[in-house]
Amino acid sequence: MRKGLLISVSGPSGAGKGTVLAKVKEMNPNAGNSISVTTREPRGEETEGVEYYFRTKEEFMKMFEEGEILEYDEFVGQYYGTPTIPLQEMSEAGQDVLLDLTIAGSLCLKENFEQAVTIFLLPPSMAELENRLRGRSTETEEAIKARLATASEEITQASSFDYVVVNDTVEDAANKIDAIIKAEKCRYIRNIDIEKEMN
Amino acid sequence: MRKGLLISVSGPSGAGKGTVLAKVKEMNPNAGNSISVTTREPRGEETEGVEYYFRTKEEFMKMFEEGEILEYDEFVGQYYGTPTIPLQEMSEAGQDVLLDLTIAGSLCLKENFEQAVTIFLLPPSMAELENRLRGRSTETEEAIKARLATASEEITQASSFDYVVVNDTVEDAANKIDAIIKAEKCRYIRNIDIEKEMN
Repeated sequence: MRKGLLISVSGPSGAGKGTVLAKVKEMNPNAGNSISVTTREPRGEETEGVEYYFRTKEEFMKMFEEGEILEYDEFVGQYYGTPTIPLQEMSEAGQDVLLDLTIAGSLCLKENFEQAVTIFLLPPSMAELENRLRGRSTETEEAIKARLATASEEITQASSFDYVVVNDTVEDAANKIDAIIKAEKCRYIRNIDIEKEMN
Repeated sequence: MRKGLLISVSGPSGAGKGTVLAKVKEMNPNAGNSISVTTREPRGEETEGVEYYFRTKEEFMKMFEEGEILEYDEFVGQYYGTPTIPLQEMSEAGQDVLLDLTIAGSLCLKENFEQAVTIFLLPPSMAELENRLRGRSTETEEAIKARLATASEEITQASSFDYVVVNDTVEDAANKIDAIIKAEKCRYIRNIDIEKEMN
């Protein structure tokens, strides 16, 4: 059986990753999600392995040290991370997984899973990125300038990715990512049993 | 400027390459064609560099020996070949080119143009290939068996191609090839100037 694809999308702040990924998920309803591992307490009906994997801080840091967490963030004193073992299990079971990762997260994904596919989403230009940041935000001039400087630096990471997709329109960018998913499934290297399957 | 993609499709006899390629060309009206070089005389209004490049047998063989012809066939005593120099020129000018090549032709294309993309089109199964050959042909049992034996051998070449596409339906196979074209244009390696273009 063909392994499931692990596909990640990253991009500089303001590239529009969230909106584009939502559209790609709509186009690929069978693609799985990564469930995060967190140190915060379950709330209400939240179930282990459905909304999150719940772990203590000690367990979480042990997982991280053992390479079982791709990347993590801290939010209000709690950790949230992307666990590697479920990715491996889904891929082995033939399940494609679409991941929304930071740039560092995508690079770690590729290190852990050689056959993962990493996509870098870019704004059409720095000028357009500035327009978008100014258009949507109530941030100070200083904050906007800081974001632009960060984005400018982040863009130099494009060369570490398999693909670059320019987010000129959400529709067009989502179509390109969808094409990448379809194409990658046809790579010979993912279909080495095809000759046997002919018979 | 991004170079044009050189994309070839090959497949065993009976895979349905002609029909699928016609559909892909419909979907990519801007993709260029390779113009063959031939030793036969121009007929009627045929113009050098439009229908064919016309060459003497001596010139043709000299081109072949100098690696300027990817592959060639003989038909009624005349040679027909795929010239490499126009491919290089079209690619440099940013023109994508969709090529209908024999298996050997695709392998030569990849040798000559490292960044070329080769696609191997497969029938859904040997049983289905047999059905198709029997359905369409008035060939003898012996001829059909010979074709199947050839196809079976040709299928073992799939591993030399970048992509494998199963021709279950023309629509589906053409969509997959179209996705491969779209995806390949997004590969970072074909967009190494993207960071500069941002500014």
